[in-house]
Amino acid sequence: MGDEEQKLTERGRGRPKTDPRDAETRLRLIRAGLEIATERGYVATGVGEVLRRAAAPKGCFYHYFKDKEDFGLQLIDAYEEFFAKMLDRCFENRALSPMNRLKAFVDAAKAGMEKHQFRRGCLVGNLGQEIASLSDAMREKLIGVMEDWQGRTAGCLALAQDMGELSVSRNVDELAAFFWIGWEGAVLRAKLELRADPLDSFAKVYFHLLKK
Amino acid sequence: MGDEEQKLTERGRGRPKTDPRDAETRLRLIRAGLEIATERGYVATGVGEVLRRAAAPKGCFYHYFKDKEDFGLQLIDAYEEFFAKMLDRCFENRALSPMNRLKAFVDAAKAGMEKHQFRRGCLVGNLGQEIASLSDAMREKLIGVMEDWQGRTAGCLALAQDMGELSVSRNVDELAAFFWIGWEGAVLRAKLELRADPLDSFAKVYFHLLKK
Repeated sequence: MGDEEQKLTERGRGRPKTDPRDAETRLRLIRAGLEIATERGYVATGVGEVLRRAAAPKGCFYHYFKDKEDFGLQLIDAYEEFFAKMLDRCFENRALSPMNRLKAFVDAAKAGMEKHQFRRGCLVGNLGQEIASLSDAMREKLIGVMEDWQGRTAGCLALAQDMGELSVSRNVDELAAFFWIGWEGAVLRAKLELRADPLDSFAKVYFHLLKK
Repeated sequence: MGDEEQKLTERGRGRPKTDPRDAETRLRLIRAGLEIATERGYVATGVGEVLRRAAAPKGCFYHYFKDKEDFGLQLIDAYEEFFAKMLDRCFENRALSPMNRLKAFVDAAKAGMEKHQFRRGCLVGNLGQEIASLSDAMREKLIGVMEDWQGRTAGCLALAQDMGELSVSRNVDELAAFFWIGWEGAVLRAKLELRADPLDSFAKVYFHLLKK
């Protein structure tokens, strides 16, 4: 059983029986939506293009999603799930010191952008920029996601204090919020310049300024 | 003579004679474009809506602009001009120490966002986020604007070193780039949260980390 099928089987547990091909189509639609929205934003993500890219039959979109808003909310959920796993992989890597775990996140996120020639940014950042066109439900969800990432990062920084890597006089919640504000800015800039330099220069100065 | 008329008269000097109402209409179109694009982004800025908001007659758009791309490039020019004046006002204020000049910019930019209930962001940040939908000419122009702002900021930080406010061991170019990467992230977040907190918390940590 492939990873994908395994995941789908797990997802299905305890739910009403669904045709596995159905679940797979939903997943393909979500993936296509993430690809388009991380590149061009949510407003520019048309249902027709999502269906074409997912090679899904016309009309099936509304079988899985109430409307585009519902699709958008589910895109954020899927992105949050994917991202939380990446953060866990980095922040719970006991082979690394806590500060190096945060650096490992920077490297992983950079590799993710490089893979798509810096054309795709962060879904949360993209949607944040388009917030004037989005609903309050989306706004609240996006703020919640950012706060979750900040909380995990603050935990990593607190561990860095425990291990003597970061001065205990620092406020880890403030530093975590500062990291995410800056990181989203760096991702935006990397997309603009189509290169890693903004990610590198943000990370270099951030870690330098935090040195004990 | 009002400020506005004065400006228009000065602009007209040395140029072929134009009907002053013509120049005024162009200015109104640019203003309307800036209002919509800083709020909802450039892709969502429709020519029809620009004309309506500017109360300009239909069809006159193409009298002033070759196409929407040309309009977009001129929006960046206008925003850059407006922003350069604000930066000059802050960075050349001899009544303040250099670090306080940078803080004065933060306050001025924050006041600018507050005035519109944090619904309008930075044009350059917005367009940067939409870059996948924009031309290479726009990309280059936007990168140039960011580099100009960074250069001015590096100058201010170098002055802070001369005055003993900032350690000479710091690299002012790196710190200026870091400031702008983070600031654009903070503006994005302030738009998402509809409040000043992200601007404040970014500035607080930035200035704290730079303390000698």
